[in-house]
Amino acid sequence: MQVKARKKSVVPAIRRSNRDKLLETGLAIMHKRGFIGASVRDIVHAAGVSQGSFTDHFPSKEAFSLEILNLYFEITQKVIEQTLRNDSMKPLKRLEAYIDAHTTYLEVVGKERGCLYGNFAAEASGHSEVVRKRLVEIFAEIQKAITYCLEAAVKARELPRDFDCPEVARFIFFSLQGAMLIGKGQRSLAPSKCFKEILFSKVLC
Amino acid sequence: MQVKARKKSVVPAIRRSNRDKLLETGLAIMHKRGFIGASVRDIVHAAGVSQGSFTDHFPSKEAFSLEILNLYFEITQKVIEQTLRNDSMKPLKRLEAYIDAHTTYLEVVGKERGCLYGNFAAEASGHSEVVRKRLVEIFAEIQKAITYCLEAAVKARELPRDFDCPEVARFIFFSLQGAMLIGKGQRSLAPSKCFKEILFSKVLC
Repeated sequence: MQVKARKKSVVPAIRRSNRDKLLETGLAIMHKRGFIGASVRDIVHAAGVSQGSFTDHFPSKEAFSLEILNLYFEITQKVIEQTLRNDSMKPLKRLEAYIDAHTTYLEVVGKERGCLYGNFAAEASGHSEVVRKRLVEIFAEIQKAITYCLEAAVKARELPRDFDCPEVARFIFFSLQGAMLIGKGQRSLAPSKCFKEILFSKVLC
Repeated sequence: MQVKARKKSVVPAIRRSNRDKLLETGLAIMHKRGFIGASVRDIVHAAGVSQGSFTDHFPSKEAFSLEILNLYFEITQKVIEQTLRNDSMKPLKRLEAYIDAHTTYLEVVGKERGCLYGNFAAEASGHSEVVRKRLVEIFAEIQKAITYCLEAAVKARELPRDFDCPEVARFIFFSLQGAMLIGKGQRSLAPSKCFKEILFSKVLC
């Protein structure tokens, strides 16, 4: 497979496949412009590959979007391993680190990006049943990891015995999504900070 | 202005202007397909008016979207008057009625629609600064109304004196948005129900 020279590459010595280029560039563009707003033409142009290369690797924009979602979920899984499922940390400290990781991420990529899951739930879920079903699976995985962490907090007596871990995990998941969504509209991290403050002072006790 | 006969109209005796037809149809289509996904062609076709009629009334799709947002906010304002600002009801009962109104709305229009504010925050806010700024104003108005209701609850001793009404109002606003967003992806009202349960059992005390 021919690999074209990339302009402004930060890692010029590493030769990436066209597939990797398309996925990495596609993730950034879809995160910024949305599932409908990001055209295949924009993505191949930004990745510096031919339209033919796109169709060689991905049968449709929908199939490509699914791969983008899986790539993004790989990042989430790493964060989950380092925080929620990191048994070397105290349970509520892990949850705090998990929430802080979202704020740090928004500071790096830009508050206006929001979370790809929320963006896709708002937009792509009405256009692709395949993407929507994958989103639902991912939501379940994340909620499971939050539940795991809360159950560890109950065992460590950081939370009361009768604490409803799965229900509060669901609440944490969608409230954090709401904070990032409204923060995206407002170009602000204030909702994420408010979420953390109220979660720890009112809900986790 | 010529008013064409509408097929399947539930109010056939009332002659609506083309502008009203475009706005009502446009709201339904934009809510379903999104800011980018809904084309002007789809909207004029569904409204049964000419493309020329659209451009007679709206200088751009962005200007049209702003009117759609204002039309949706008119519905919100009515709900707010009947619930959050309805001084004839007990304060926390008003808040409960406000939240229930969202669930009822989703039951009527379809869980897959979500809230137009959240959809626009996720999608349109990256494409139109005019729409984004209007969204921010609307978010502030809604949070003000929730704050008003919480302050009334403090006065009525339904909440403690030191309750941070503006901060909890912000939290209620984005958490409810998150519940509707994730419920849209999951095609479920479970997040909205979980939100209400945890809000009243953990946060409002």
